[in-house]
Amino acid sequence: MVTGAHGFLGRHVARLFALQGHAVAGIGHGEWPPEEWSRWGLSEWHTSAVTIDALRQHAGAPSVIVHCAGSGSVPLSLVSPWEDFQRTVATTADVLEYVRVYSPATRVVYPSSASVYGVAKTFPIGEGSRLAPISPYGVHKLMAEQLVQSYGRQFQLPGAIVRFFSVYGCGLEKQLLWDACRKLAAGDCVFMGTGDEVRDWLYVGDAATLLLAAAANAAPRCPIANGGTGEGVSVRELLLQVSHSLNPNSSEPEFSGASRTGDPSRYIADISKATDWGWKPEKHWRDGVAEYVAWWQRHGVARTEA
Amino acid sequence: MVTGAHGFLGRHVARLFALQGHAVAGIGHGEWPPEEWSRWGLSEWHTSAVTIDALRQHAGAPSVIVHCAGSGSVPLSLVSPWEDFQRTVATTADVLEYVRVYSPATRVVYPSSASVYGVAKTFPIGEGSRLAPISPYGVHKLMAEQLVQSYGRQFQLPGAIVRFFSVYGCGLEKQLLWDACRKLAAGDCVFMGTGDEVRDWLYVGDAATLLLAAAANAAPRCPIANGGTGEGVSVRELLLQVSHSLNPNSSEPEFSGASRTGDPSRYIADISKATDWGWKPEKHWRDGVAEYVAWWQRHGVARTEA
Repeated sequence: MVTGAHGFLGRHVARLFALQGHAVAGIGHGEWPPEEWSRWGLSEWHTSAVTIDALRQHAGAPSVIVHCAGSGSVPLSLVSPWEDFQRTVATTADVLEYVRVYSPATRVVYPSSASVYGVAKTFPIGEGSRLAPISPYGVHKLMAEQLVQSYGRQFQLPGAIVRFFSVYGCGLEKQLLWDACRKLAAGDCVFMGTGDEVRDWLYVGDAATLLLAAAANAAPRCPIANGGTGEGVSVRELLLQVSHSLNPNSSEPEFSGASRTGDPSRYIADISKATDWGWKPEKHWRDGVAEYVAWWQRHGVARTEA
Repeated sequence: MVTGAHGFLGRHVARLFALQGHAVAGIGHGEWPPEEWSRWGLSEWHTSAVTIDALRQHAGAPSVIVHCAGSGSVPLSLVSPWEDFQRTVATTADVLEYVRVYSPATRVVYPSSASVYGVAKTFPIGEGSRLAPISPYGVHKLMAEQLVQSYGRQFQLPGAIVRFFSVYGCGLEKQLLWDACRKLAAGDCVFMGTGDEVRDWLYVGDAATLLLAAAANAAPRCPIANGGTGEGVSVRELLLQVSHSLNPNSSEPEFSGASRTGDPSRYIADISKATDWGWKPEKHWRDGVAEYVAWWQRHGVARTEA
């Protein structure tokens, strides 16, 4: 079962697990026609809040729940912290309690976020680094992690956590790459920030295979692995690639110098835990970005103009 | 306003704030006749779950909310972790959001617990010690703290946190002292544990004055202070005092040697932060225990037999 399977990460996870031969049920927000969700590999889809009652009705006793439902936005958490808490923490409490009471053999895989580290001091960031989130989004992701770990320690619930760095890929209709395609295509080359912010960009297909590895490694001691490539790429480099992919003759991106609230300047993952699971990222960021731009030109440009 | 004012700590807090000249409103679970709640200093009492809607209806714009509502039991959290989460974490999310949106000048005082430290390695335990709770109760108290701090950092909500060690006093109808009075009076001298478990026993009147000091020190940076006496007293010493207070000729308590799940063996508070606030504990534990036993003989014995 994939919660939040209608979301960007959730649908890629659903498809991968289906390709591996699993029957995949989905639950979460979003109206979704059967011809679409079945194309993403789901054998059933339930438009519903993720609550104990809804899980009792729809979940059965799945071998794995990948709990992708939850807030996906730092800026939203600054405006609506209570909603962010409900989406991220309260749904996790319900998933865990459902498993404890009704389906104790189910493994729970939780996609968390590098935002739990806050402003790191040493790089690459290992899983044992100080946890000091600076946005409500990061605080809530950390609280959800603590719940998964608590259920593992106390009730032997098998869990695994992946702290994703910057996941991107075709279909993502928000965040930096989406905004950059829109702006650069419209001739607007000025971006917020300094351009020197460093992120570790992970292709969504690689994120999905890492969650598959996490499911295989889920245990009551609840292992935690970073999800990234181990390579830091500045926003400037990334946007240059976007710009060249859109139009080799376009002008270079410029930066306003103003930094965004809640955004640490530098994120690079130590991915040795994830590679210990036998996983490795397949897609180089330049290829991934080029594919993203090509996708945007086919599909995103129409959505932008609509 | 005092949430959970019907509870053991809550009612002592209500009375102290009332004695200081504040009009004190209470909200929380428990049917409570007006002649009783008014005797505890409350000017109003609302039997209600602590939610944003209930606070909108009843809270107004108080100068301080002391959020005493929440789970008060490690054992309950082992049996009903979801309920413990709801009582402790979800109510805190609602209190904070109410303040952010409807009453941003309100200071929020949060009575947390030494359980957030888990099994400490060095003593006395300072507030900067490693936070590694081992029971769901402790995990949830830590999560509630993280919410208070997040609202302070992000929304300048003035908060303060007190991590209480073992709070006791007249009126507490559960936990070690209550059970000990019942058992020893019935001639049963055998207790769980080794007797060498060390706790830092704080009299409830001293806990209330510390929350008053916390209210005066609440700020967006959300200071945290331990609530204890700084003195460690073993369960054996404590129960000897109970035994002697009940009956100077009674036999000594014995111990089964079995330890309880979720109970660290040793808790002693470093209280320098709290004393920096100008607070100090007034009641010595021997006097407090003697008073407790005298109270139990007047009131508790009847409740026990009922």
